[in-house]
Amino acid sequence: MTIGVVLLSGGIDSATTLAIANDRGFECYALSFFYGQRHAIELEAARKIAVSASVKEHRVVSIDLSEFGGSALTDAAIKVPEAPTTGIPVTYVPARNTVFLSLGLAWAEVLGAHDLFIGVNAVDYSGYPDCRIEFIQGFEKLANLATQAGVEGREFTVHAPLIELPKADIITKGLQLGVDYGDTVSCYQPNRDGEACGRCDSCRIRREGFQSAGVADPTRYY
Amino acid sequence: MTIGVVLLSGGIDSATTLAIANDRGFECYALSFFYGQRHAIELEAARKIAVSASVKEHRVVSIDLSEFGGSALTDAAIKVPEAPTTGIPVTYVPARNTVFLSLGLAWAEVLGAHDLFIGVNAVDYSGYPDCRIEFIQGFEKLANLATQAGVEGREFTVHAPLIELPKADIITKGLQLGVDYGDTVSCYQPNRDGEACGRCDSCRIRREGFQSAGVADPTRYY
Repeated sequence: MTIGVVLLSGGIDSATTLAIANDRGFECYALSFFYGQRHAIELEAARKIAVSASVKEHRVVSIDLSEFGGSALTDAAIKVPEAPTTGIPVTYVPARNTVFLSLGLAWAEVLGAHDLFIGVNAVDYSGYPDCRIEFIQGFEKLANLATQAGVEGREFTVHAPLIELPKADIITKGLQLGVDYGDTVSCYQPNRDGEACGRCDSCRIRREGFQSAGVADPTRYY
Repeated sequence: MTIGVVLLSGGIDSATTLAIANDRGFECYALSFFYGQRHAIELEAARKIAVSASVKEHRVVSIDLSEFGGSALTDAAIKVPEAPTTGIPVTYVPARNTVFLSLGLAWAEVLGAHDLFIGVNAVDYSGYPDCRIEFIQGFEKLANLATQAGVEGREFTVHAPLIELPKADIITKGLQLGVDYGDTVSCYQPNRDGEACGRCDSCRIRREGFQSAGVADPTRYY
C-alpha cells in the first residue's frame, strides 16, 4: 500500500480529507500539532477521528507557535472576533500551514512516503493566504527541492482534495465516506466539554455548511 | 532599521551569517531551535554568540523532531559516523531547513520583517539537499505565497550569504567582522564541557577550514 501522511486538526476539513485518503487506498499516517492553540479539545477530536479512520499511526508533535504570538488562536491577549471582519483576520496563525506541511514532510521523508494530504479550502478559507492553491503548488515544488527523494528524482504530491469545494459539498462527501462529524470540533473557543460558541467565524462557516448540505448539525453549542 | 530574522545554530556558519547581517545594517532577531538534537551545548553557544552580536532578541523554539527519528542527530539508536561516507549521510535531519525556515517565516511575519538569514553552504554541505541554492530560491518563492505580506505584494528575501563560500573564506570573513569562533560549537557529539570529538564529519570540515584559512583553531577537543 502507498503511504500517505495526513495533517489532522480535528475539524471537518481534515476529517474529510483523511476519509478521502483512505478511500483512495492510501495507508494513512495522521499528524496533529499542539501548537499553543487556546484549547486542546481539538486534539481530543483528532484522536477520535484517527481511531475511527483506523489510521496506521497517529502522532502529535508539540511546537510552540505561541512563542511568536501574533494570532488570536495562539495569543491570549488577542480576542477571537465574533462578527465578520474584512481582510486577513486575527485568527490567522502566521505561516501555520507552511510549518505544518514542513513537519508533515519531515515525517514523510522518514517513512519513505511521497504523498501529503492537507484539508485546506480556498472557498470558505477566511482569507488565509496559506489556504490558496498557489501556496499548495509552491510547497509541492519546495518539497522536491528540500528532500533526498527530490534529489533522487521521486516526486512529492501535496493532495488538497477539498481546495475547491464549498463546505456543504465537503460535508456531503464526508457523510458518504462515513465520517462522524459529531467527533469533530471547529470552534475557536470551545468550552471544556468540547461545546461550541456558535459565534466565531469557524462556527458560522460550519453551521452554514450543515444547513446548505441539508443535513442535521451534530454540533453541541454552549 | 530593517529587521532581519537570523537562524542561529551555534556553529561557525550561522555565527558568521549573523555577523554579516549586522554588518549589512539589519536589526537582528536571532532564532534557535531545540529540536531533539543529541546535545544542548550548541544552544549555549548560540546564546553566547547572540549576546556578542548584540541582537535585538534571541528566541529558542522547542520542536521535537526526534518524534520522527530518522537521523543520527535526533535518534540515539543511529550512530554518528566517524569516517567519510558517500551520498546523503545519516546525520541529515529530514526536512530540517524547511522546518526551521518555516518557523523563521512565522516569526518574521509577526515582526513585520521580510528578510530571513540562513547560514547554509553548498560547498562543504555534506550532501544535504536542503543546503542547495535551488532550495533557498524555492523557499523564497513559497514565503511570498504563504504570507499576508506576499498577498499584499511585499517580497520576502531569504539571504544565504555563505552559500558559495568555502569554509576557509567563511572563517576569514567572520574574523574580519569580529566573530569569536571560540564561542561556536560544530561537533555532532561534543562532551558536556562543549569539547569536540575531532572525528565526525562536522569536526573534520571545521578543522580543515581553520587550516585552509591559515588561522589558529580555537576548538577544544576531548
